[in-house]
Amino acid sequence: MFTLDAQLAADTAFITRFKLCQVLLMKDAHYPWIILVPEREDIEEIHQLSPADQAQLMQEVTHVSEKLAKAFQADKINVGALGNVVSQLHVHVIARFTQDPAWPAPVWGFGPPAPYADGDLEVWTEGLQKILV
Amino acid sequence: MFTLDAQLAADTAFITRFKLCQVLLMKDAHYPWIILVPEREDIEEIHQLSPADQAQLMQEVTHVSEKLAKAFQADKINVGALGNVVSQLHVHVIARFTQDPAWPAPVWGFGPPAPYADGDLEVWTEGLQKILV
Repeated sequence: MFTLDAQLAADTAFITRFKLCQVLLMKDAHYPWIILVPEREDIEEIHQLSPADQAQLMQEVTHVSEKLAKAFQADKINVGALGNVVSQLHVHVIARFTQDPAWPAPVWGFGPPAPYADGDLEVWTEGLQKILV
Repeated sequence: MFTLDAQLAADTAFITRFKLCQVLLMKDAHYPWIILVPEREDIEEIHQLSPADQAQLMQEVTHVSEKLAKAFQADKINVGALGNVVSQLHVHVIARFTQDPAWPAPVWGFGPPAPYADGDLEVWTEGLQKILV
């Protein structure tokens, strides 16, 4: 049975569920930062998914990318599946801006996240539900 | 007409050509580091590709991931499309090891690349042709 990794659960807020993935918001107010987690057991690499799930993952990644790019007028979308720290397969989709704190470096390992202010996390997850669904 | 970005061309060696992508080796001997560049004009984001090209890109990414994982007995495969510096769409597929210099950090921006020794670049590109084709 699929269970969301405890670290991913602690670092994110739930937005919605697609056909394949849980859609999560990274708790870092520096960036509009979505994490997609395929609800499949014991998968660490994209190539371990079935071909059908791989195709579905691509659709969900490009859907989120396109919606974030438009909604936030992003300068760039960063997509990444790393998993060096949390091995459960998860794909980052991040709206980047030439003025954001890490630009042009990657956001991973760039420094401590900026917590959302009280109440903002609910505003963001509800707003992103509307953008993404 | 598609033309490979000059910075990508300078930083890599040609391995082969798939149906969609040029397959390049990053000139950094620290990691088995492949870059896939879809041969499509004026594309900066995965979601700008046609759905058929997106599906093909996923196939080529997972093909390279699986072959690298097996050939090098990698601890993890990192996949990323960033483009904050070079905007032409390119996807990194990198075999990572718990003993590699950057682990567990991402390789991007980690420090200067390690040049391949004289002759090694040819050995690597020929070896990777056999592994990937």
